[in-house]
Amino acid sequence: MTPLAARASELDTPALLIDLDIMERNLGRVAGYAQEHGLRLRPHTKTHKIPALARRQLDLGAVGLTVAKVGEAEVMLDAAPPDLLVAYPTIGARKLERLMQVARKTQVTVALDSLTAAQQLSDASRSHQIEIGVLTEVDVGLGRVGVAPGRDLLDLIEAVERLPNLRWEGIAFYPGQIKKLDGEGERELEKLAHVIEAMLQDLGRAGFKARIVSGGSTPTLFHSHRLEGVTEIRPGTYIFNDCNTVLSGAADWQDCAASILVTVVSTAKKGQMIVDGGSKTFSSDRPTAGEEVSFGRVVEAPEAVFTKMNEEHGFIALGEPRKNFEVGDRVRIIPNHICVAMNLHECVYGIRGDVVEQVWRVEGRGKLQ
Amino acid sequence: MTPLAARASELDTPALLIDLDIMERNLGRVAGYAQEHGLRLRPHTKTHKIPALARRQLDLGAVGLTVAKVGEAEVMLDAAPPDLLVAYPTIGARKLERLMQVARKTQVTVALDSLTAAQQLSDASRSHQIEIGVLTEVDVGLGRVGVAPGRDLLDLIEAVERLPNLRWEGIAFYPGQIKKLDGEGERELEKLAHVIEAMLQDLGRAGFKARIVSGGSTPTLFHSHRLEGVTEIRPGTYIFNDCNTVLSGAADWQDCAASILVTVVSTAKKGQMIVDGGSKTFSSDRPTAGEEVSFGRVVEAPEAVFTKMNEEHGFIALGEPRKNFEVGDRVRIIPNHICVAMNLHECVYGIRGDVVEQVWRVEGRGKLQ
Repeated sequence: MTPLAARASELDTPALLIDLDIMERNLGRVAGYAQEHGLRLRPHTKTHKIPALARRQLDLGAVGLTVAKVGEAEVMLDAAPPDLLVAYPTIGARKLERLMQVARKTQVTVALDSLTAAQQLSDASRSHQIEIGVLTEVDVGLGRVGVAPGRDLLDLIEAVERLPNLRWEGIAFYPGQIKKLDGEGERELEKLAHVIEAMLQDLGRAGFKARIVSGGSTPTLFHSHRLEGVTEIRPGTYIFNDCNTVLSGAADWQDCAASILVTVVSTAKKGQMIVDGGSKTFSSDRPTAGEEVSFGRVVEAPEAVFTKMNEEHGFIALGEPRKNFEVGDRVRIIPNHICVAMNLHECVYGIRGDVVEQVWRVEGRGKLQ
Repeated sequence: MTPLAARASELDTPALLIDLDIMERNLGRVAGYAQEHGLRLRPHTKTHKIPALARRQLDLGAVGLTVAKVGEAEVMLDAAPPDLLVAYPTIGARKLERLMQVARKTQVTVALDSLTAAQQLSDASRSHQIEIGVLTEVDVGLGRVGVAPGRDLLDLIEAVERLPNLRWEGIAFYPGQIKKLDGEGERELEKLAHVIEAMLQDLGRAGFKARIVSGGSTPTLFHSHRLEGVTEIRPGTYIFNDCNTVLSGAADWQDCAASILVTVVSTAKKGQMIVDGGSKTFSSDRPTAGEEVSFGRVVEAPEAVFTKMNEEHGFIALGEPRKNFEVGDRVRIIPNHICVAMNLHECVYGIRGDVVEQVWRVEGRGKLQ
């Protein structure tokens, strides 16, 4: 870990910087949006992976936290959440044993989409005499996890209701197919509203009342109130934002709190510079929306294109008007996908202007299991 | 970290497994190749990032080790290498200070391509009264780092020769433009041989004799002896191999020592399964050669295609003949690019058959600086 420098300009590179003013504005905006529309906010902590930041989200009114893995749940106990949603099927005896230890310390809910997952969860809960909440995951068009609305969903809910030590709480969904709220995205959003409406009517006819309907995504974040029946949102990226968020239309460049400070290490090829961050610093995630393949936005040269990367090399094609950079110069680059970038850094720096106010260890980094 | 299980089949997932029999065969093959052709072998440790494995490479005849960053150099001191090559320009006072501490413990050589990098290195070396070896990096067609052969190279060598406390050792190059030794690759290799030959003649006429000519890449590995004048190779991936190595023609599937054990967590969508490893487990690196975008090869179902990934979800399209997998089943997947995958794992498991013989911490993981 880099020793703490008092000034951001003195940090060694690459270093992931968090602009605290922007981050605080982002946190406030979404907390306000959720409150205004009476939506429960259960932020996904996979973006920041830092308990201290999760605590801030709770202090701003979040009802609980979302995590993707048991390992993240263990880390997030440090934020003392009243409630933890594991938004991922927890499969296998070892993980379930660890989940039960988490559930001894706070209320746990699991999103799942199979009888096998429900059965395993019930068995583990029963042997520990713990009750676990369950959200049945529904596929609303992404084709990833989730049962189809209709008979499959009803069967799964019935199974969960029958299994001991499980408490069916409602529905989880993730409309990851909507990349951007453009014309097509708008049509997808309307379709989604109909799917949810029909599903809830379906449940009602079968005698099921979902206490929680939890869903949404970053591109649809500020449109969540238009999805009737939805009671809860689980946004993650909003705390920092990134190129993908901006390209999706859910934020502007000035809302991007996170950037990676890098040093120019070579200018040997004309019209190009090489910086000391590549796929091990940014991740090789491409943009989820938009045509151009770029791996980030150079703050000091927005016309430049981050065309390519190797593990430790970032290739920046200098655009027009061309700024001249020299070996040793430092620039900040907003990553495409901040969640995976955070996962590559041991620690990140919270700055205000040039002052480093905070150094956070990324406690949830590398929690694969 | 997962507690040690005696059996690979009892490990929690995702877990990165190293088949020790295959790894040892790979290590022996390249050590033998280097010896047969009188090439110095200075393996790039960025692939495994584990000092104990670097030590094995040295014990098999490697003359030293290659690293990409000062942080990796610090870690690799544990392997007690007689020589460390930092194959990357080291820029900035903090990194150079750390490099000097490394150079107090073993002989250090740095590859660089600019006067700025040479000047900074000389200043640091002089203030510590240490001599550092320098390889001048030449661009042989990739267009990444490296000066052009010819006047630029001669100017850089002259500058290095003049600067105090630097010892010019020779040339480094990386022909990353050759992705595969097919027809086009063969033509590229011949072109490369000519470039190197002309460059060395050029140097000779100017009165420079390169003691070391260090280069090559994974696809060209077993053709290195065809590049006249080359004295040293720095392969990394050969210890494990991966999909990219196989697609490049430098290895077969049975030479792939590393795979990632994952669990099927959802089969809700017909013809597809979701496994509990995505971009945070494999990295989102796409294949460097070949047309089809796949993120890995399922050992138990080679006809399946790893079509897509999110952070924690791997999407596997089950091909024909379709095997049926159920939630809870476990499969092994060979990653596209093992170097970046290793970087995502805290520890990896050395197995022989189903027996876990070794658990290695990936000590060089996350060394960004």
